[in-house]
Amino acid sequence: MTGIDELPVRDELRGKSPYGAPQLDVPVRLNTNENPYPLPEPLVERIAERVRDAARNLNRYPDRDAVQLRSELAKYLTTTGHHPLDARNVWAANGSNEVIQQLLQTFGGPGRTALGFEPSYSMHALIARGTGTGWISGPRGADFTIDLVAAERAIAEHRPDVVFITTPNNPTGNAVPPETVLALYEAAQAAKPSMVVVDEAYIEFSHGDSLLPLLEGRPHLVVSRTMSKAFGAAGLRLGYLAADPAVVDAVQLVRLPYHLSAVTQATALAALEHTDTLLGYVEQLKAERDRLVAELRAIGYEVTESDANFVQFGRFEDTQGAWRRILDNGVLVRDNGVPGWLRVTAGTPEENDAFLDAVRDLKKELDA
Amino acid sequence: MTGIDELPVRDELRGKSPYGAPQLDVPVRLNTNENPYPLPEPLVERIAERVRDAARNLNRYPDRDAVQLRSELAKYLTTTGHHPLDARNVWAANGSNEVIQQLLQTFGGPGRTALGFEPSYSMHALIARGTGTGWISGPRGADFTIDLVAAERAIAEHRPDVVFITTPNNPTGNAVPPETVLALYEAAQAAKPSMVVVDEAYIEFSHGDSLLPLLEGRPHLVVSRTMSKAFGAAGLRLGYLAADPAVVDAVQLVRLPYHLSAVTQATALAALEHTDTLLGYVEQLKAERDRLVAELRAIGYEVTESDANFVQFGRFEDTQGAWRRILDNGVLVRDNGVPGWLRVTAGTPEENDAFLDAVRDLKKELDA
Repeated sequence: MTGIDELPVRDELRGKSPYGAPQLDVPVRLNTNENPYPLPEPLVERIAERVRDAARNLNRYPDRDAVQLRSELAKYLTTTGHHPLDARNVWAANGSNEVIQQLLQTFGGPGRTALGFEPSYSMHALIARGTGTGWISGPRGADFTIDLVAAERAIAEHRPDVVFITTPNNPTGNAVPPETVLALYEAAQAAKPSMVVVDEAYIEFSHGDSLLPLLEGRPHLVVSRTMSKAFGAAGLRLGYLAADPAVVDAVQLVRLPYHLSAVTQATALAALEHTDTLLGYVEQLKAERDRLVAELRAIGYEVTESDANFVQFGRFEDTQGAWRRILDNGVLVRDNGVPGWLRVTAGTPEENDAFLDAVRDLKKELDA
Repeated sequence: MTGIDELPVRDELRGKSPYGAPQLDVPVRLNTNENPYPLPEPLVERIAERVRDAARNLNRYPDRDAVQLRSELAKYLTTTGHHPLDARNVWAANGSNEVIQQLLQTFGGPGRTALGFEPSYSMHALIARGTGTGWISGPRGADFTIDLVAAERAIAEHRPDVVFITTPNNPTGNAVPPETVLALYEAAQAAKPSMVVVDEAYIEFSHGDSLLPLLEGRPHLVVSRTMSKAFGAAGLRLGYLAADPAVVDAVQLVRLPYHLSAVTQATALAALEHTDTLLGYVEQLKAERDRLVAELRAIGYEVTESDANFVQFGRFEDTQGAWRRILDNGVLVRDNGVPGWLRVTAGTPEENDAFLDAVRDLKKELDA
C-alpha cells in the first residue's frame, strides 16, 4: 500500500484530510443545511422530461456559455432582488464552490490574498488554499457580528485582493447590515482596490433583502448565490453569481470550457420553472427557523440571531460531547469547530420536534 | 461599460481570450471530436428514469465520493483494459479537464512545473496556467512522434513535477508506443520523482491497447479518461482517472466537496449500462476514421497516422484560408494552430462524404 505521503503532493497538503461533514445514516439529518422538502412531483417529472430532451443531444458538447440558464437566473434575481439584471450579469458553475474557485483564480492566486471574517463558510479559506491564494482571517465580535472599526482596520492593514462577506453568515446565521457591507466595500477600494464577494447562499431565508441593488455602479462587487438551499436542489450543484458584465467576462478566462453539463443546465432550467412553489417551502422553513430560535431560548440555550435556514446554539463546555449526545438520540447536527456552539438546520416540523426533544433531554442532563 | 482591464485581474490573464472552438451553426460539424451518433433511444429513456429517481432526492447533497459510479467505471476499465481495478483506483469529475485540474492542484501548483510534448491537448497548458503551475513545452518530431532521446533530455533538464503524455495524441491523432511511455516514466522518476499523467481520452478508438496494465507497481502513474468520446456523452462532462489508491486519496484533498452532481452520477450510471451498444458505434467510427485516412491520401493530402476519432491532414500554406474554404462548403473542421495542418473529426458516413467532397474541391483549387 502506497500512502499519500509517499506521493509528491504539495507540502501544504501533507497531513490534511478531505473537507466534508460526516455522511452518516441517521433518522434525522440536520447537519448540512439541506432543504428537507423533496422537490414536488410535477417538478420531478419536468426534470425527467427536460433531461430526456437534453440526452437526445448528449453526444454534443453543452452550450459552453449556458446562455439560456443565465438568462433565467437573471430573471429570477430581477424579480426577487429588486434590481434589473440580464444574462450578461450572471455566471453559473457547479456549485457556488466552483464560482468562488473561479473568482479566486481570476482575482486571487499566487502572490495575492483573500480575507474573510471568521467563523464563516470554511470553504472560502480552503478554496483560497487550493488556488494558491494567501488567506487572512478577519475578525468577528464575541456575538459573531462584524465590528466595523476592527474590520476596516484589518482591510487597511492587510490590503487583501479579495474580501468575502457572507450574509447571512454560515455557520452563525446572522446577517450583515447593508451599511456595513457598503463601508467594507469602500474600505476595500481605498486599500487596494479589491474585489468584494458577498456570499448570499442563504439570502432567501433572510428577514431582510438581497444586496443585489448595491451592484449598481460598483464593478468590484460580486454577489454569489446557490440553488442548493432555497431551491431545494443541493444534489444539483448549481451556484451562480451576479456582477458587472466585466466580471462575467473575466471569470471566463479561467473557467474550464464546457464546465456545466447539459443535464445540469436542463435540470436547473426545470427547477426555475417552479420557482413559486419552491419559494413557498422557503416561507415554511423561515417559520420553522423562527420556532427553533424561540424554543431553544425557552429551553435555556443561547442562540445567535438567524436569517438563514439554520440556527447556531450553545453554549457547551464539551461541544463534541453535546454533538454526540444529540446524535445518540438519532439527530445529526453540525459541529463547525466554533468552540461552545453547534449548528442545527431547520428541517420539517417533525424533524425539528425530534431535535427539540433531544436538546431538551440534553439540557436536563447538563443542568443535573 | 467596465472593461476586464479595469478590474484587478491577475496580470497573466490580461489580454487573454477564453478557450474554446467557435460554436457555429453549420450543417456538418466535425471540429470538436464529438461522437456523431446520438445516444440510442432506450438509453435516453434509461437516463430519464435514473434522473427522475435522483431528482426525488435532489434536496440532499449527492454522494460526495461517487462510490457507485467509480465502481462501475472500474468494472468497465477492468473488462476493456485487461487490468483489474476497483473503486479505490478510480476518481471521477466534471470532464477530464477537472480531473487534470485536480491533479495539478495536488501535484503541481505555484513553484512547480508540468511538461507536455507539443502540439498536444492545449488544455494541459491552460490548466497549468490556471493552477499557477509553470508550463514547459516538450519537443515532438516533425512527424509529430515523441523522439525518446530528445524527450528524456527535456525531462532531465527541466525536472518537471508532472509529465503529460497524450495517447492517442490530440490534435495529431498518433499513439505513443508503450515502450516510450515506460521509458518516459523511468526518466521522470530518475529526475525528480514526478507524476506521469497518460491522457487516454481517445484510447477506445486506438488500434492498440490501453496502458492501464502499466499502473501495476507504478504509484506515480495516472491514466485519465473521459465519457465524452467513446460513450458519446460530451454533454455529460464526465472524466475520470485510474491510478494507485493513494493518488485517489490525494486528489480528494483538493476536490471541491460534492463536485459531482446527483444528475451527473445518475446519467453516467445509465450510460455505463449501455456500454456494449456504445462501443459498437466506436467500431463504426474506427472504420470511418480509416476510410478518411485512405481517401485523404488518395486525394493527395498528407495525413498523420491516427488512432483517434479524428484525422490531422495537410499541408497548407494558408491554413486559415483552407479552414475557411471548407467552412464555405458547409463543413466545420478545426484549426488547432499547428501550422500547415487541420483536424477533422470522424462523423457519420454522410458527414464524412460531405467533408471529402469539400476537401476534394479544395485540392483542385489549390493545385490549379
